[in-house]
Amino acid sequence: MTSLIFNRVTVLGSDGVCRPDCYVGVRDRHIVYIGDIPPVERFDEEIDGFGKVLTTGFVNAHTHIAKTLMRGYGEDMLLNDWLFHRIFPFEDKLTSEAVYWGSLLGIAEMLKTGTTSFSDMYFFCESTVRAVAQSGIKANIGRGISCFDESLRFSDLPAYRELCELIPIYHGANDGRVCIDVAPHAEYTTRPDILYDAAQLAAKHNLHMQVHVSETEEEHLACVGRHGKTPTGVLAETGVLAQPLTVAHGVYLTDGDRELLAEHRATVAHCPKSNLKLGSGVADIPALQRAGVAVAIGTDSAASNNALNMVEELRMAALLQKGLQRDPTVLPAETVWQTGTRVGALSQGRKDCGEVAVGYRADLVLWDTEVLLGSPLSEILYSGTAKVVLTMVDGKVLYRNGVFTTLDIEKIYHEAKRCAIEIENRK
Amino acid sequence: MTSLIFNRVTVLGSDGVCRPDCYVGVRDRHIVYIGDIPPVERFDEEIDGFGKVLTTGFVNAHTHIAKTLMRGYGEDMLLNDWLFHRIFPFEDKLTSEAVYWGSLLGIAEMLKTGTTSFSDMYFFCESTVRAVAQSGIKANIGRGISCFDESLRFSDLPAYRELCELIPIYHGANDGRVCIDVAPHAEYTTRPDILYDAAQLAAKHNLHMQVHVSETEEEHLACVGRHGKTPTGVLAETGVLAQPLTVAHGVYLTDGDRELLAEHRATVAHCPKSNLKLGSGVADIPALQRAGVAVAIGTDSAASNNALNMVEELRMAALLQKGLQRDPTVLPAETVWQTGTRVGALSQGRKDCGEVAVGYRADLVLWDTEVLLGSPLSEILYSGTAKVVLTMVDGKVLYRNGVFTTLDIEKIYHEAKRCAIEIENRK
Repeated sequence: MTSLIFNRVTVLGSDGVCRPDCYVGVRDRHIVYIGDIPPVERFDEEIDGFGKVLTTGFVNAHTHIAKTLMRGYGEDMLLNDWLFHRIFPFEDKLTSEAVYWGSLLGIAEMLKTGTTSFSDMYFFCESTVRAVAQSGIKANIGRGISCFDESLRFSDLPAYRELCELIPIYHGANDGRVCIDVAPHAEYTTRPDILYDAAQLAAKHNLHMQVHVSETEEEHLACVGRHGKTPTGVLAETGVLAQPLTVAHGVYLTDGDRELLAEHRATVAHCPKSNLKLGSGVADIPALQRAGVAVAIGTDSAASNNALNMVEELRMAALLQKGLQRDPTVLPAETVWQTGTRVGALSQGRKDCGEVAVGYRADLVLWDTEVLLGSPLSEILYSGTAKVVLTMVDGKVLYRNGVFTTLDIEKIYHEAKRCAIEIENRK
Repeated sequence: MTSLIFNRVTVLGSDGVCRPDCYVGVRDRHIVYIGDIPPVERFDEEIDGFGKVLTTGFVNAHTHIAKTLMRGYGEDMLLNDWLFHRIFPFEDKLTSEAVYWGSLLGIAEMLKTGTTSFSDMYFFCESTVRAVAQSGIKANIGRGISCFDESLRFSDLPAYRELCELIPIYHGANDGRVCIDVAPHAEYTTRPDILYDAAQLAAKHNLHMQVHVSETEEEHLACVGRHGKTPTGVLAETGVLAQPLTVAHGVYLTDGDRELLAEHRATVAHCPKSNLKLGSGVADIPALQRAGVAVAIGTDSAASNNALNMVEELRMAALLQKGLQRDPTVLPAETVWQTGTRVGALSQGRKDCGEVAVGYRADLVLWDTEVLLGSPLSEILYSGTAKVVLTMVDGKVLYRNGVFTTLDIEKIYHEAKRCAIEIENRK
């Protein structure tokens, strides 16, 4: 049991509205008190929040956390060169140990920058589960599914077998901190029957799904050529859209795609930095929001970002749309803040996360700010001069004033580097 | 006299090339030794650079430093609402004291993020000169010139009188750290005869010039309507282009404009974040570089950025062009690094700045990095996980491990906040 109160702190809600000079009490995993006056009951620890801002943590709605090992491994390269000469050969040699240390390194960066939950899609999932469990962060861990062998059915795939092992042991583990998702990689790396069976598995176990959709124009058009419908159309047809679903990227979507996504209440995980860096383009976020599609924000992996810093990602999302639509009122701070917090939490099926309110999980971030005339929200989102001083997940302090409470960061960096170099040198 | 050596450090040149395990000696204002072996001569202080990266400092090629007071003051607003309801009314009430504290606050942020020189355009220039002199940073301080009264000639303007006082006292002061520039605000805020006279003044005193050009499409087209030529055409006609010139923004330029700029060896100060945030658009940097125009990078002011963080600005410049041109090989890391360092220094007329080489000014930044398989350049530029541990200008350490050696940061923040609030509350 932990019990802690933030005194005289400014609370910034997921809607971007500020409430100054609050007392926020946390007991066990939940926020139990918010008020303008000190509560009657006692808390074990007090944190003076005067001049500081308390927010909910960010939800990174799309990443491949273990690829933190590949940060900076191949820059300014054409997508196919990068994939076939760097990423795929490295991934072929990955080990569960490397995924473990790579996951921890990525988790450390996320905690330090105010992220309290993430949606992941990768393999060696047990290693990532272990890293999540140990670190104290939350995650929806999606086992990536791909199939390039025509003769194999879904139930023949290693991903299927791994999911069958993971689901009963880890889904909902650590009081719900760990969730297992079913994550077909994409239309172009699977088949309609695989997508159908994956959706059935998700339905059977009541699991969320993740999938890459229309990240590049080439991929989008190739699917239309293959199936006579868009990737989103294929997802609808195979039952994937019928499941609670996070669609990563969505850079090239038709009006019809947006209607389908809205109708099925799917969430698009917008990854602006990765889409720019790989030369994919820019998703039309206002069009998605007009169509009623929920938009969350993800960093994608550190191999293509190269950061896992959500506040930088939110800033990019806001600035990019303003500039390209030539309208500074587009994607205002309050809207983009919500995409990075509450919308992300809902995309993971975490209804009691992503808000600073009594009864919600205590996934909280305390910020040091230097506001002159602006608001705390503009300070954090646009100025980048605000600093994370504390990150808490489920009521437990995981990072405080530069120190991780659950992670040995020196060791993690050392081991991740060792693993990365060993893999690179392996024939 | 200061004398210091960085031992076993990785030197990252302005061309993006790394040289590991170097010894870099600094005496007085200059770099006096770079080698693979320790030098024979002694230095007063040694800094262990093992695992660290030494670069030249960034040159912020366009800002209005005192507007750090207005950071976050009006967000997500249409340009004219923002200007006429926030910025201009605030500026009408500015004082020299406020400009002084606002300048210091901006300078502190720049030193902390590795910027060693900046080009400024504003008024109350003596306050900014004082802040620059005290802090130890370098700056080309341009007195902004505008004229909305048809009856006034250049020599009637306060800007002219102020320049006449500033130039003999401060141009080249502090062994060249402070330079005075002549800075007509823009075509649309002056007249051709004012531009002509300003260029004559610059020519007489051998000064650099700064001017805003084609930041918005509206401004660009209005000029064509008014004069039958583009803003760049007006600058050519009035002799402004004949001076060493930094052109800020250049979002809307014609092929003819680019040719004129190249022919006259002007530098374009690209300000990608501000151009996005204000909804202005995106400058076509590859087209400028193909035309042979020098491109430097600026943050513009904290009122529209909202940061003065050059590494974030460089990252934005690179990612934006890759994404919009749909080609990840565009603006590679090495090119963008040079724009933010050496090209910026040359735009200020500082030929002995912007490079880590013997004989150059010791404007140096020491970085802590967390490289796994990537390069130090990709780590600093793309990943944002590298941290500035030391910033030196002209051989003097101004920032080290979170501490400013010439600035009382608590007092600066307090005074800047007081000034900003007083101005906002004044009738």
